[in-house]
Amino acid sequence: MTDAKKQVGMGFGRVFTDHIVLARWTEDEGWGAHEVVPRHTLSLDPAAAVLHYGQALFDGLKAYRGDDDQLRVFRLADHVQRLHDGGERLAMPGVDTAQLRAAILELLRVDGHAAPKATDGSLYIRPFLFADEPFLGVRPAASYLLVVLLSPVGSYYDAGARPLRLWVEREHVRAAPGGLGAVKAAANYAASLSAATRAKARGYDQVLWLDAIERRYLEEVGTMNLFAQLGDTVVTPALDGTILGGITRASSLSLLREAGRAVEERRITLDELEAAARGGQLRGVFGTGTAAVVAPVGTLGLDEHTLEIPVGQDVAPWLLETLTAIHRGRRAAPAGWIDVVS
Amino acid sequence: MTDAKKQVGMGFGRVFTDHIVLARWTEDEGWGAHEVVPRHTLSLDPAAAVLHYGQALFDGLKAYRGDDDQLRVFRLADHVQRLHDGGERLAMPGVDTAQLRAAILELLRVDGHAAPKATDGSLYIRPFLFADEPFLGVRPAASYLLVVLLSPVGSYYDAGARPLRLWVEREHVRAAPGGLGAVKAAANYAASLSAATRAKARGYDQVLWLDAIERRYLEEVGTMNLFAQLGDTVVTPALDGTILGGITRASSLSLLREAGRAVEERRITLDELEAAARGGQLRGVFGTGTAAVVAPVGTLGLDEHTLEIPVGQDVAPWLLETLTAIHRGRRAAPAGWIDVVS
Repeated sequence: MTDAKKQVGMGFGRVFTDHIVLARWTEDEGWGAHEVVPRHTLSLDPAAAVLHYGQALFDGLKAYRGDDDQLRVFRLADHVQRLHDGGERLAMPGVDTAQLRAAILELLRVDGHAAPKATDGSLYIRPFLFADEPFLGVRPAASYLLVVLLSPVGSYYDAGARPLRLWVEREHVRAAPGGLGAVKAAANYAASLSAATRAKARGYDQVLWLDAIERRYLEEVGTMNLFAQLGDTVVTPALDGTILGGITRASSLSLLREAGRAVEERRITLDELEAAARGGQLRGVFGTGTAAVVAPVGTLGLDEHTLEIPVGQDVAPWLLETLTAIHRGRRAAPAGWIDVVS
Repeated sequence: MTDAKKQVGMGFGRVFTDHIVLARWTEDEGWGAHEVVPRHTLSLDPAAAVLHYGQALFDGLKAYRGDDDQLRVFRLADHVQRLHDGGERLAMPGVDTAQLRAAILELLRVDGHAAPKATDGSLYIRPFLFADEPFLGVRPAASYLLVVLLSPVGSYYDAGARPLRLWVEREHVRAAPGGLGAVKAAANYAASLSAATRAKARGYDQVLWLDAIERRYLEEVGTMNLFAQLGDTVVTPALDGTILGGITRASSLSLLREAGRAVEERRITLDELEAAARGGQLRGVFGTGTAAVVAPVGTLGLDEHTLEIPVGQDVAPWLLETLTAIHRGRRAAPAGWIDVVS
């Protein structure tokens, strides 16, 4: 089952809580108040810019209920900052980080009761920003709407997750240097859906993207950053401008370094990965992201063969356990990682 | 002034007629009826897929009032077919071309009175399709809304258009091979706005995009395809998958060939253009598109210098006159190019 399908049964992305955050930005006034209001449909002019020119940006993070019943948000400030920073590339306003953080915490105070108990999952938080000015001229819009949704999510692993099967995509490209790949733009996902659909039809869970220029460097997975363990060294593609700077990726690197692990952020070719597998140095491949946290990869599908990857012999299980312990308040988190909802 | 600004004064993209076409596609039912209804705001769930994952595609065409007062739509079938064909790359349904053509003609019968008189402009027609399923899973949506808007547009040339100044963009990229460049996806425009804004701040009208891989082949302009005349030969970038197959581009090629002109569709480097300018072979550069029809380019801005381009010595004036004569019914059009609104 795919990431999305696994979580559907438990409500991911289809069941929402009763309230949302709403805020508006206009060229004249900047950001207005960030209000928690009952969830309702939005009225959008059919000429609203987002429907035509795709100015839309989002983020995704989670709040977890701990063993102590407290609700903890994981890296709220970092997610809000990433949403802010992404605006520039899309010629959109940056969010008001202080107001948005406060509004998300207020929304969690109001609707946090919807967060599943510790073993059952989390509360997915989706802040997003889009252009709603009714104007068809091709230029940045003069007004934007910011919305935050909450959706209770079942645990990725309760659904009997097995190691992922990734299709190495050679036809379509997710993002080129100079493109939108480093920001969480709606446009990147639009570009990815056709290849993801083909991969699923072939029996794969997600796509593994290659770089746009040489088509040999590993970039990222559908909804995750990619890691490989070669011997004792954990390697992940560097943030060169075409891949998303995942917060779970950054958290993983930080925890691995703190634990004294050898970690490298650099370019990795598909050939290097295959050679390491042949030579017995490949200890594992895994993805990191808000949805799955850490997800082992068992198979890479290539045009003419598949590459089977060992599972459970790398740092992935330790990383998942460590991150989960932080999410649930069983382990002290580095400063700034956790906001407890009061 | 930019293309958009020029036409704002006359209503482009901000003033709309009283009716729209609406049709819905669902996974279970396919396309429903295409209805002409009073223009109204759309109700969209905040989880609607288009706001998160950018599945949105559009087209743009025009109806012109002739000297005989009849309203003529330019290449309706070709625009509808292009919208249809673009769906696949975005994992969206193709439009029902027969129903959509009929619905656009019906909308023009109802609201065609809003078309400006011959010398004053045209009626811009904007069909667009977007994912409205309220679901946050990253996969193609299961329901879509198709809308057609009409907007009366002043003549591009009445506003005192001067030759365009284009900024040759070297940092951002519009589309890479394997990306969305060949379809009229909202995502392409999202990627373009930041560079276009920078170009405007430097005193340029639009961006001239280079290829994503080598950054030396000319691709297309913000809202137009690009042509250059080298000696007697008219050259335009070939449709290699990264640029939009413009209908005005195709019409121009067809008319030039019919008139016995030497025409080449091939890759052109910036170096070749500069060498031709230095050697005196560059007779002109122009853009083609629905908005401007044919727009001469007078200046290319590069990092360290500008390239001044001769104006009025190429086929651009003839092409504009010929296309305009077809639009207004003063010249016979090739079969299938014109639908008269009865």
